[in-house]
Amino acid sequence: MPELVGNVLVGQSGGPTSVINASVAGVINEALNHGCIEEIYGTLNGVLGILQEDLIDLASESQQTIRALRHTPGAALGTCRYKLKKQEDFNRVLEVFKAHNIRYFFYAGGNDSQDTADKISKLAQAQNYDLRVIGIPKTIDNDLPITDHTPGYGSVIKYISTTVREISADNAAMGQNDLVQIVEVMGRSAGWIAAGAALAKRRDHPNDPPHIICLPEVVFSPEKFIADVKRVLAREKFCSVVVGEGLIDADGNYVSASAKTDAFGHAQLGGAGSFLQGLIEQHMPGTKARLVTLGMAQRAAVHCSSKTDNDEAFQAGVKAVKAAVEEAETDKMVTIVRGNTDHYSVEYGLAPLSDIANGVKKLPREWINEDGISMNYQFVRYAQPLIQGEVTLPFENGLPVFAHLDKNRVDKQLPAYEV
Amino acid sequence: MPELVGNVLVGQSGGPTSVINASVAGVINEALNHGCIEEIYGTLNGVLGILQEDLIDLASESQQTIRALRHTPGAALGTCRYKLKKQEDFNRVLEVFKAHNIRYFFYAGGNDSQDTADKISKLAQAQNYDLRVIGIPKTIDNDLPITDHTPGYGSVIKYISTTVREISADNAAMGQNDLVQIVEVMGRSAGWIAAGAALAKRRDHPNDPPHIICLPEVVFSPEKFIADVKRVLAREKFCSVVVGEGLIDADGNYVSASAKTDAFGHAQLGGAGSFLQGLIEQHMPGTKARLVTLGMAQRAAVHCSSKTDNDEAFQAGVKAVKAAVEEAETDKMVTIVRGNTDHYSVEYGLAPLSDIANGVKKLPREWINEDGISMNYQFVRYAQPLIQGEVTLPFENGLPVFAHLDKNRVDKQLPAYEV
Repeated sequence: MPELVGNVLVGQSGGPTSVINASVAGVINEALNHGCIEEIYGTLNGVLGILQEDLIDLASESQQTIRALRHTPGAALGTCRYKLKKQEDFNRVLEVFKAHNIRYFFYAGGNDSQDTADKISKLAQAQNYDLRVIGIPKTIDNDLPITDHTPGYGSVIKYISTTVREISADNAAMGQNDLVQIVEVMGRSAGWIAAGAALAKRRDHPNDPPHIICLPEVVFSPEKFIADVKRVLAREKFCSVVVGEGLIDADGNYVSASAKTDAFGHAQLGGAGSFLQGLIEQHMPGTKARLVTLGMAQRAAVHCSSKTDNDEAFQAGVKAVKAAVEEAETDKMVTIVRGNTDHYSVEYGLAPLSDIANGVKKLPREWINEDGISMNYQFVRYAQPLIQGEVTLPFENGLPVFAHLDKNRVDKQLPAYEV
Repeated sequence: MPELVGNVLVGQSGGPTSVINASVAGVINEALNHGCIEEIYGTLNGVLGILQEDLIDLASESQQTIRALRHTPGAALGTCRYKLKKQEDFNRVLEVFKAHNIRYFFYAGGNDSQDTADKISKLAQAQNYDLRVIGIPKTIDNDLPITDHTPGYGSVIKYISTTVREISADNAAMGQNDLVQIVEVMGRSAGWIAAGAALAKRRDHPNDPPHIICLPEVVFSPEKFIADVKRVLAREKFCSVVVGEGLIDADGNYVSASAKTDAFGHAQLGGAGSFLQGLIEQHMPGTKARLVTLGMAQRAAVHCSSKTDNDEAFQAGVKAVKAAVEEAETDKMVTIVRGNTDHYSVEYGLAPLSDIANGVKKLPREWINEDGISMNYQFVRYAQPLIQGEVTLPFENGLPVFAHLDKNRVDKQLPAYEV
């Protein structure tokens, strides 16, 4: 195996998760083990930081800070939704890599970010610049193909199912068969996150909340929804509804009126919960509809994150470095491969970035019950191992303490670049 | 001291908190210590359960269940917002008490509930029925007079300040000076809950989030709000706003249009966050305004509750029983009395129910900074001790496990009563 001597650059992209910093910690920890790695840099705000040569020296951070990264929400290096478009942008990336002798590039992100990593890798190959690019999977959406699941998913559904179980205890206390509690969760194109709320049900208690899960995989019918709510209220003290923001109607449009688009042309959602609340108020006068919108809280809730997920995120970072350094791999993303045994276990594999980029893993239709509003045992068997274990946080003055990087800047070598 | 032999009845009223069940556990634990107490009953859904003679035998629950009550959200006995109005209702309450030889009545609730307890106590006295009535303070709103604070408050602000700190880490990663993150919290008539978000700031970091706290104590000015947001965005990567649902405008009306009223004639709120979001979108085109509405999640979040609060809630239940049995007290509410030392300590006192009923403790204006959107050190000194310590929950399959009462019914002795 040819030893490639040079520097590491690690970046984060897309929406943060409560474990994306654990992946960066994994990269740093493992990079320190390899003599061929001279410097460990981070790029501020993903590819934006590369274009603008905003790099920081991660090796100069205290060990305490790097350890604390493992349980720090957000993306400590900063992230972006910027998409490299022009050839000029890609050339600039490579110029910056050359100027700082970056030979290992690790990029934690979702579909779009892996696509970016793939293109950078291909360009380096075309220019005969020896660069090893390994993507690290990251998204609460759990919609990356090939990998069994994505770091970030286990934690978001642990938080959501905990929250649904807690709110439901409150609802049960107040409910007089006239309360509909709606919890709106994220999930643009797939129902993975909303489906995860099903874990709030106790084993052998199918009537436990959530009573209705509205998924983008199932075309939304207002008539059926109202009928389902009425049926639940006839049986239970209240009706617990979990809805993903990406709910679509019979015409294939998002049910929420106010659709806008983000930098990648994806619709920016929000409002599916309000939409359901409005439906209840309109069609069921006298029934109270209460809304909880978890928004960014769900992907930042490290205080209620999954230890399994956190460990896997860290190990995905470790694997990325090992694959690049020890196996001379490039243009791949780390995947999580589930063992075939009854007892949950994982190994880490690799898949070509081009196979990951812009792919979407749908929630299997056969994991949704016939009623279209609940999940069956196949989903539970898949998802339950992902929420096991609690992350122990350090507390100070009653609140969790998070890492704050010093962000010591690496001297710029190139003229400024207009983004 | 005359020993009063008979049965205990304990009830819960109003909105649940994450520690109201800890108070019930305190009542049960302490009641078991006194030979003069023969049976320990609970009323289902507060005074509604009394009127309908829906009583359960709490002594028959397993010790395991009662121990688990200490960290179970919601109100395990059920609660209500029903207000006794007619003399007939009060007479019925006393009839039920007599039929079941209830000599000790403990009622955990807020202002309205303490008013109800007061009236029941007065009626018993007028009829020469020997009954000891002790109220147990409960409300996330922290708006009861006399008591230093109310059980439930410390936990809700621990959860909210944790959430604000976590979301802010996410916001900082994404923010490009164009993101306004709004977190809407409860608080009908006072800003105690929104103010508590100030604890998310690290010591000596006044520019930490939350950057703007909108309180009902400060008349809301849209112009000032927009100016404040712009000023923060010029300085920070994002702007963190926490708003209480009870925000009022210059005319004294709630800023949210959709005001409805509950059974007590209080306005049912919601929408202050959407209102601010709309303001941003209208006056600051190009700026993203994201909304998190915590709703009932905040008062049920036992997984992020305060050990100090939980312990005090339990001890308030213990104190209620001791006061009634050992001190022959009645027509009082347990109060929390803070020690005068630097080190936080509390004792438990008593105050006449009539002094508590329908009173409202406002957030002191002098604890709000001149800017009207942040809290000063006096507030922090008051609130910070209340969020100290974490409650350890038992987990099963990755989720916290809560108590489920058997609810063994006490045989009815009286004809049915129409509510």
